[in-house]
Amino acid sequence: MLETDINTVDLIIEARWIIPGAPRGILLEHAALAIAQGRIVAILPIIEARQRFHALETVSLPTHALIPGLVNLHTHAAMVLMRGLADDVPLMAWLNERIWPAESHVVSDRFVHDGTLLACAEMLRGGVTCFNDMYFFPQAAAEAIDRIGMRACLGLAVLEFPSPYAVDADDYLNKGLAVRDELRDHERITTCLAPHAPYTVSDRTFGRLMTYADQLGLSLHLHLHETLDEIAQSEAQYGLRPLQRLVGLGLMGPNLLATHCVHLTPGEIETLAAQHCHVAHCPSSNLKLGSGIAPVASLLAVGVNVGLGTDGAASNNRLDMFSEMRMAALLAKSAGDASCLSAAQALEMATLNGARALGLEDRIGSIEPGKIADLVAVDFSATEMMPCFDPISHLVYVAGREHVSHTWVAGELRCEHGVHVGVEQMELKEIARLWQGRLKQFHR
Amino acid sequence: MLETDINTVDLIIEARWIIPGAPRGILLEHAALAIAQGRIVAILPIIEARQRFHALETVSLPTHALIPGLVNLHTHAAMVLMRGLADDVPLMAWLNERIWPAESHVVSDRFVHDGTLLACAEMLRGGVTCFNDMYFFPQAAAEAIDRIGMRACLGLAVLEFPSPYAVDADDYLNKGLAVRDELRDHERITTCLAPHAPYTVSDRTFGRLMTYADQLGLSLHLHLHETLDEIAQSEAQYGLRPLQRLVGLGLMGPNLLATHCVHLTPGEIETLAAQHCHVAHCPSSNLKLGSGIAPVASLLAVGVNVGLGTDGAASNNRLDMFSEMRMAALLAKSAGDASCLSAAQALEMATLNGARALGLEDRIGSIEPGKIADLVAVDFSATEMMPCFDPISHLVYVAGREHVSHTWVAGELRCEHGVHVGVEQMELKEIARLWQGRLKQFHR
Repeated sequence: MLETDINTVDLIIEARWIIPGAPRGILLEHAALAIAQGRIVAILPIIEARQRFHALETVSLPTHALIPGLVNLHTHAAMVLMRGLADDVPLMAWLNERIWPAESHVVSDRFVHDGTLLACAEMLRGGVTCFNDMYFFPQAAAEAIDRIGMRACLGLAVLEFPSPYAVDADDYLNKGLAVRDELRDHERITTCLAPHAPYTVSDRTFGRLMTYADQLGLSLHLHLHETLDEIAQSEAQYGLRPLQRLVGLGLMGPNLLATHCVHLTPGEIETLAAQHCHVAHCPSSNLKLGSGIAPVASLLAVGVNVGLGTDGAASNNRLDMFSEMRMAALLAKSAGDASCLSAAQALEMATLNGARALGLEDRIGSIEPGKIADLVAVDFSATEMMPCFDPISHLVYVAGREHVSHTWVAGELRCEHGVHVGVEQMELKEIARLWQGRLKQFHR
Repeated sequence: MLETDINTVDLIIEARWIIPGAPRGILLEHAALAIAQGRIVAILPIIEARQRFHALETVSLPTHALIPGLVNLHTHAAMVLMRGLADDVPLMAWLNERIWPAESHVVSDRFVHDGTLLACAEMLRGGVTCFNDMYFFPQAAAEAIDRIGMRACLGLAVLEFPSPYAVDADDYLNKGLAVRDELRDHERITTCLAPHAPYTVSDRTFGRLMTYADQLGLSLHLHLHETLDEIAQSEAQYGLRPLQRLVGLGLMGPNLLATHCVHLTPGEIETLAAQHCHVAHCPSSNLKLGSGIAPVASLLAVGVNVGLGTDGAASNNRLDMFSEMRMAALLAKSAGDASCLSAAQALEMATLNGARALGLEDRIGSIEPGKIADLVAVDFSATEMMPCFDPISHLVYVAGREHVSHTWVAGELRCEHGVHVGVEQMELKEIARLWQGRLKQFHR
């Protein structure tokens, strides 16, 4: 782990605690991180770091835990502009009667740029350094992400029906692939193919997507088994549950990320494990839309890689991974086992498991030498964080996103005490005001 | 609602929104509150307030919602010193192997004073103005509550087995009644009798408590049907479920507050309704200890008065009523109905229903002329609160306790931007450090 002579690095972060995230449950006290060219060079005791490294900048975090940047494994970032537009409404009515009509009226590249910028600002403030997005106009999302300096995987949305973005599945796919070509050398933005859901995508389109996924080495990201309605509809239309249909189409595999998976038979859980699929668990959104509680303990027990997502702010209504960690850990215990889904495991789901699902586990998701320095400092000095017997447990059960003090992406400070680098609060507020005005007619 | 000529009042609060809490769902825009001698004199448009009242002090809240102070209907305040001492452990092991041994070692009047002060500070910062406590050394709790200026109902704990506070049930009861006598004229502190739970209190003791409750006009507060274990144990010992046993003893009635009620038969739900009992719902604690999910929708449907509680910080691990409102509203939808337990109803549970359960609904729980001015300002100006189509929905689904800017108790400002009146942060931190040192041997 250590270099021999004195080396110059860009940044040393000295922290009360470092929680590297891997191996699970490890806690380092009075530890330092050396960072050069955006990557982690060494993790070592503070005293040794001072002897072995000369740093251009040193950040001291005497009451903080330094953790890996959080990975929001499923969201629709731009929908933050519809936060609270339709609350206490079930999924299908929420989509058909509220969200889709509003989207058809307002969605544009400007909407997506503005919404994504506001969402990124919220996520960075709350310790999220990377998110997996699924929405329209991905080029506009990429511009916003670039400006604020976040990491993201952009899901290139594909569905059969028209929107302000595209007229049919081929149009979605062609536009998406063009964006993928533009972004292929981007350092912080990757892309994946995002067929919306089995109920909005035909067999023919799934077939085309599989071909592109294979040829271009792209993963697939979709909504799956979110509601009982969706399953009943598929059984009526195809004589198959959606997951069975995907099996038949040959879609299951290690490059498939299935979001929600609320309603699963034991056999389907086995299939997800055997096929090495990844699952994005969105506990708050699943509750809020009345979808139910995903069988996360069972998925984890058979080795499925499960990460955490906020879903869009229109169904959460926060883009807050601290809330999701806490909710996931608490909700998994609802079946009666208080030892199920420990705090350390919830943190792993929100970091390394998310990175793994995005194919980024060799670059992010834990604090290890050689990995990119996507980092978050959480301040434990507030009285509501005291006393503290176990900082990992406190991260999940006590801390909120308001305790995040610093967020770095690739070793660059992107947010400090709620203030972003390169984006003014005034601009964000102006964006929110503008779109609130345009959307309020859809609130009732 | 209005006075005629110009009146001098102590305080005018002008707010972007006032959410009075009663009737449910009402939202007043650009409204003002006139307060004199700790009580609400009038609610009226800001322009009218400026014409009709002369105020010694005016507070302007241009981006805020003013709401009734939150009522934490069940907690063990001093246990905040054991926050995170035993996580991911089920209730009975948590009690028998972790909490009770630690308590027998450290609990004293000093422990209770210090813990209650730290807990009150956390609650006031997070918008809680009143709490219903159940713990040992209530006189020491009262001293802390007095210092920080909060409102509370102190449950005078009674159980059969010894603790550092008392040797047997009679000793608990006698000590409790002495405290009750000392506090009987206190403006902000009331008392109730708090038999811990059916599994720790004998029939004989319940009988004595009922006599005192009747004679002194005190209500009864206990834990009930928190776990399946508790029910099985009662069936083995008494041949009755705990609630049936209480029915037999004649305990059920409008002065009974039952906490948890996670496991209830339809008949038991009917009994709680028919007997006009009150229920304290503690959703986070019930999940965290693996107890389960209380049938809140069913309780509300038959008219049971259900309030919200955090439980102690040793099983939550926050004293955060914003978290509980959100959790209650989300969790009630887990059965599949997204319209169940709306945001407005969750707010009502956290305010007026709590006040009603404590017999204080004519004094607190809503913003109405004549009621005491227990008030909380929530700042909506942060970008993570934007856009905003419905402030009541945002309070529950978007806001966190970190957005609380001001907390008043009886018209007195007790906390502003996280800073308490009369208690220094340094003292609170010293308290946490002291007891962390004494308790750490019980953490493993």
